[in-house]
Amino acid sequence: MQYFQTTLQLKEYPRGFHLITDQIIQAMPEIRQIKTGLLHLFIQHTSASISLNENADPTVRTDLEAFINKLVPEHTPYFEHTYEGPDDMPAHIKASLIGSNITIPIKDGSLCLGTWQGVYLGEHRNYGGQRRVMITVHGQ
Amino acid sequence: MQYFQTTLQLKEYPRGFHLITDQIIQAMPEIRQIKTGLLHLFIQHTSASISLNENADPTVRTDLEAFINKLVPEHTPYFEHTYEGPDDMPAHIKASLIGSNITIPIKDGSLCLGTWQGVYLGEHRNYGGQRRVMITVHGQ
Amino acid sequence: MQYFQTTLQLKEYPRGFHLITDQIIQAMPEIRQIKTGLLHLFIQHTSASISLNENADPTVRTDLEAFINKLVPEHTPYFEHTYEGPDDMPAHIKASLIGSNITIPIKDGSLCLGTWQGVYLGEHRNYGGQRRVMITVHGQ
Repeated sequence: MQYFQTTLQLKEYPRGFHLITDQIIQAMPEIRQIKTGLLHLFIQHTSASISLNENADPTVRTDLEAFINKLVPEHTPYFEHTYEGPDDMPAHIKASLIGSNITIPIKDGSLCLGTWQGVYLGEHRNYGGQRRVMITVHGQ
Repeated sequence: MQYFQTTLQLKEYPRGFHLITDQIIQAMPEIRQIKTGLLHLFIQHTSASISLNENADPTVRTDLEAFINKLVPEHTPYFEHTYEGPDDMPAHIKASLIGSNITIPIKDGSLCLGTWQGVYLGEHRNYGGQRRVMITVHGQ
Repeated sequence: MQYFQTTLQLKEYPRGFHLITDQIIQAMPEIRQIKTGLLHLFIQHTSASISLNENADPTVRTDLEAFINKLVPEHTPYFEHTYEGPDDMPAHIKASLIGSNITIPIKDGSLCLGTWQGVYLGEHRNYGGQRRVMITVHGQ
């Protein structure tokens, strides 16, 4: 029974969805020591998100970004939380809709992602800076 | 302290939301061995979802399906990821909005679902095939 | 390696988003015993939600509530699940979109929330009553 924990500091990404699966695996090599367990990802921010989606075709990421921008438009007239710019309140809403934490099974030293699954960082600010993702692994 | 893990291969379901609570409990009888712990569900696909919702009235499931189809319409003109059919990109978006993994507490050998809570498979493709759900239990 | 579990019975909140971070920490003082681990929150209801968002400016909470009410309107003509009132089916939909469970890392006896992160109860009914949140902590 073991616990491992680290913080992955990402580079600054532009607004949109980005695959970060490989960086997570590299930041937590202890995954290989776990026969049966779980990996937990947690983004320590309220204007970015973590989710799982298709890992192959980049148009899935751009279509998802286009859709979510239409769903949660900037300059919505009734927003009051506007002093950080028009992209800020929509970013908070996207974070609550998509989520900020996921858990992925580990089996025989590997993440049990499906064939087409990858980890998405959703950067919902225009200039969000370097985001921190905490990674916690536990298992036996 | 124990870990248990299995893969539940579901039958093919039609598009929509479906209750799969009983199948999960049957696939993981080791829940009964756990006094205090957690059960984790993970769908290994990017066009289906796992969530918790009302377990009694089937119109909750059909209303949710009707709503999500209006929220994320097919044939959205700006979608570029269209070569797998008009239901594919909406299915990816629904998967990120609803989510692909949940964790449920275990107490005294039982899942701690509320009275009205059940586990929903969200099948977002017209012909999604047989979906795989990984189940991981840990506790003492 | 330890597991702790308790149920936090909240007071009745009005419809909207409410910060409950402090109540969670008070209900689970065993967080301080964990050097490396995880805290899991689970709301045992299908018309309320748990998520993470901005903990400082109350207009984030009111803007989020205003947005989600427009996104999932009451009196949607095709809803069939209406016998519990016009706020009920929208509440179920909001619960599936936002989610009913989150996991937060613990490090050195403290929750690893980002500077601006707080735990939100989303009360999506007009009169939702007293909600129960199960808290499970594990780690070493």
